[in-house]
Amino acid sequence: MTSLNSFGCGGLLRLKRRDLGSSHGVCCLKWRYGGVGRLLCAKPVEDGSDPVPISAAELSRVSGNADALETGRWDRELSTLPKQLSATDLVARSQGSNMRVAYQGLPGAFSEAAAIKAYPLCETVPCEEFDVAFKAVELWVVDRAVLPIENSSGGSIHRNYDLLLCHRLHIVGEVQLAVNHCLMALPGALAQCEFKLNELEAIQQSMHDTAGAAQIIASDNLRDAGAIASAQAAEIYGLNILEERMQDFSDNVTRFLILAREPIIPGTDRPFKTSIVFTLDEGPGVLFKALAVFSLRNINLTKIESRPQRKRPLRVVDDSNRGTAKYFEYLFYIDFEASMVEHRAQNALAHLQEFAAFLRVLGSYPKDMSKCFPQEKFSN
Amino acid sequence: MTSLNSFGCGGLLRLKRRDLGSSHGVCCLKWRYGGVGRLLCAKPVEDGSDPVPISAAELSRVSGNADALETGRWDRELSTLPKQLSATDLVARSQGSNMRVAYQGLPGAFSEAAAIKAYPLCETVPCEEFDVAFKAVELWVVDRAVLPIENSSGGSIHRNYDLLLCHRLHIVGEVQLAVNHCLMALPGALAQCEFKLNELEAIQQSMHDTAGAAQIIASDNLRDAGAIASAQAAEIYGLNILEERMQDFSDNVTRFLILAREPIIPGTDRPFKTSIVFTLDEGPGVLFKALAVFSLRNINLTKIESRPQRKRPLRVVDDSNRGTAKYFEYLFYIDFEASMVEHRAQNALAHLQEFAAFLRVLGSYPKDMSKCFPQEKFSN
Repeated sequence: MTSLNSFGCGGLLRLKRRDLGSSHGVCCLKWRYGGVGRLLCAKPVEDGSDPVPISAAELSRVSGNADALETGRWDRELSTLPKQLSATDLVARSQGSNMRVAYQGLPGAFSEAAAIKAYPLCETVPCEEFDVAFKAVELWVVDRAVLPIENSSGGSIHRNYDLLLCHRLHIVGEVQLAVNHCLMALPGALAQCEFKLNELEAIQQSMHDTAGAAQIIASDNLRDAGAIASAQAAEIYGLNILEERMQDFSDNVTRFLILAREPIIPGTDRPFKTSIVFTLDEGPGVLFKALAVFSLRNINLTKIESRPQRKRPLRVVDDSNRGTAKYFEYLFYIDFEASMVEHRAQNALAHLQEFAAFLRVLGSYPKDMSKCFPQEKFSN
Repeated sequence: MTSLNSFGCGGLLRLKRRDLGSSHGVCCLKWRYGGVGRLLCAKPVEDGSDPVPISAAELSRVSGNADALETGRWDRELSTLPKQLSATDLVARSQGSNMRVAYQGLPGAFSEAAAIKAYPLCETVPCEEFDVAFKAVELWVVDRAVLPIENSSGGSIHRNYDLLLCHRLHIVGEVQLAVNHCLMALPGALAQCEFKLNELEAIQQSMHDTAGAAQIIASDNLRDAGAIASAQAAEIYGLNILEERMQDFSDNVTRFLILAREPIIPGTDRPFKTSIVFTLDEGPGVLFKALAVFSLRNINLTKIESRPQRKRPLRVVDDSNRGTAKYFEYLFYIDFEASMVEHRAQNALAHLQEFAAFLRVLGSYPKDMSKCFPQEKFSN
């Protein structure tokens, strides 16, 4: 069974045989998340070279300079005074002009494509880890972060659910992106394999992200290895695409959240979604009551996710001389289809607050209604 | 932030400094799951040595021999005829006498401790991967598999939720185990560090499982490395425990499921739980209705988990000229506190079946009411 992950993590496929004993000669791509706290951040690209990492120390200096500008604002030259905004400026702004958007991965990552889908004119800023992207927004290094939250075949990215709660950012939008995994290699490499890769006992090696796998093949001139990444990554790192649509399920969509320091003012001019997180005092038994507050107001839920409560993971209950029952305590994350300006949404949350031990609105934002596939199928 | 995983995967801690740039000098232990299909299976331990892996080919031969025994049963000697069962035999049987129980990991793994908690007299059989343990039950190599399904601080083990659906095994029990992570090393090793491990920039290396990390330290005589594993693993591999209770949250419990080829006949003599999996045709909007079938009959839920539907991951809906909405399709896993012999449970499932597109009962089994901690706290 070959398993492909679609969250922007990548695989390096080495075309060397190895003794797999009596197994079926297939193995899983393995992926890893999380890690050290170093910041990979794009400097302004002046010479057309790829972005290089800057250190957290450098990040602190940047933050310090911003303060200096702030305190020295009366000494500005006239040319630095704010210009009048034009209608064109506003359109450019909505397209992400002058906006810096952080994503996890390297140039060519699916997360970068999501950032560009959201803000076509933005400057994308690669980050080594998910939590670096959160911090980059908090420290004003960037304006937005775009992070994968779930994939239609792989499920939720739990790390990002946990990070949403650790940080105080607001969800201001979502992006749904069709993820097309391509197999790629150096031009001319692997030709002798006749692309019959299924018949090879390829050694599958996990990498931190898809674009990173493509980059290593190019930088280390690996002629016996292939990578699974985006078509964009193949172009950036000068690799040839051997096969497209490598994913197990062709309808492969990843949903990303757009995060900012400030919430947006929700409207009713187009479909909105709202994301919340809450805990219930009596465990999952009252989850029915929690869902009722939405159902009674005809508010549709699009997602429910449970995660352990880290600070209070367990409740032990003495059960009438038959022993003790242990209940795991959960956080519930819910997305519902309503804008926070709607009374029914406000009433539902007021109702939920009557019995929820903890409730936080993570954001109210426009639903992504764009097409993901060239010929999108309809069912209703 | 140091993150400890409690699902039976292990960490190797190398006490070498490395340049961590301007990060805070801490990094995450990274864990991996899944992989190739080789079987690590314990042979009868006659010389006191550790179990050695047997191959899948050997597994096929074992299965062939079983058939041979079956067909040649009329040639048996008298001494091999079945003996009469005694009451003592029944007690021994309930304790797992003559029972082979598969678990993922190596001797000393937390999963092995869970197997022994469930069946104190059983013979435990280590498996390289989770799905090997499932297959070992299906192929009659073992009688039971004991697999972690969720941890109070780490959350669900989604791989095992997916495997529950891929295989046709039945849940016949659960085990809740307090997981105490110990830091261990070779006797005399690391003494010069004065155990001030927090101040060291230790390189944290992920391993396939906790006991595996301990084993490698012993077999490779690594005097500059420590492992995080169970106290039992320290004893088996001759390591000294440097510190106990290394986990981030002291109330750290992992819940394991016991799987068998045949379901058990549920009773009402003690508290039972039932686990089901289902899909809903109209997406999460009808989840409220699904939970109502339990709530209306005063059946308490202890767990709800959603996973993507692999075969039908996405539903695209045309939304009145405003674009297209994409809904991810989910499988829902629910545990509820009732036995399948109870009418209310049967009625609830009949009610659910009226609108669920798919419904499967994974098992009805006694709740683990045993104590996990020496001085268990009560709250009610």
